[in-house]
Amino acid sequence: MIVLGIDPGIAILGYGIIEYRGNNFKVIDYGSIQTSSKLDVFKRLEKIYAGLDLLIKKYNVDEIGIEELFFNKNVKTAITVAQARGVAMLACAHNNKKTYEYTPLQVKQGVVGYGRAQKAQVQSMVKSLLNLREVPKPDDVADALAVAICHCHSNRLEKIIER
Amino acid sequence: MIVLGIDPGIAILGYGIIEYRGNNFKVIDYGSIQTSSKLDVFKRLEKIYAGLDLLIKKYNVDEIGIEELFFNKNVKTAITVAQARGVAMLACAHNNKKTYEYTPLQVKQGVVGYGRAQKAQVQSMVKSLLNLREVPKPDDVADALAVAICHCHSNRLEKIIER
Repeated sequence: MIVLGIDPGIAILGYGIIEYRGNNFKVIDYGSIQTSSKLDVFKRLEKIYAGLDLLIKKYNVDEIGIEELFFNKNVKTAITVAQARGVAMLACAHNNKKTYEYTPLQVKQGVVGYGRAQKAQVQSMVKSLLNLREVPKPDDVADALAVAICHCHSNRLEKIIER
Repeated sequence: MIVLGIDPGIAILGYGIIEYRGNNFKVIDYGSIQTSSKLDVFKRLEKIYAGLDLLIKKYNVDEIGIEELFFNKNVKTAITVAQARGVAMLACAHNNKKTYEYTPLQVKQGVVGYGRAQKAQVQSMVKSLLNLREVPKPDDVADALAVAICHCHSNRLEKIIER
């Protein structure tokens, strides 16, 4: 089972791709799709869609987890990021992949075991579970891997394969 | 010059397609792409993208105007609508169409002549300029036509064609 985790954003979208087999994780790839604010917003959205589309196809992803947005203040920022998230969701849908949404709370619960965990705890757990030497940077990448782990730990995963 | 105006939304996306030639308007088509809240959000985004993609190709649209979102309260609603707007923007970009963003204020200014115009004034002007018998319903459709008119009245329009 190949799982893609997405931490959506317009300037930096984090992605993490892991293989989950018999309760073991193996890292396949991780990184970020970055778009410069010098590009017009249409080009930025195109780049995000094209990048994700490529990743889904390249790694023959089975299922996808995508983090929900949480904003309580800046509506303008929320709108800009949500536009990018919509495009990311479309790339998943156009590839006919089962995609599941997780709140930041659910991601923390799914990775560390409780929802009030600190960011550093989540990152440390990601590093440990995936046998990484360091916590991936920027934070968006570690967050995306956390979303992928969260999906594997959830009972929404299709458990019929390779167990 | 065929201009598409878009009033973005997740439940109802209004569209208006007009021909602008020698300062005269001719209505080509208008209506809405509607998605039920019973559909999952991924399907809704797919439907919006597919619908707009079809319209752009069918009418061989030259340029596009899309309204900017304005929310001052409900961030959750803003996020949901912005995701749909992102997908609409991607459909424009994938078709290589020049697309311009207009604030609600700019739309009012572009149609009625001043930014504090009432909604009814804008609708009445849309009806009059486009020689319609009635104001198109729902409001999103009249708004989309207003965005198209606003773009035609703006100096961003490519004025080299058919004048």
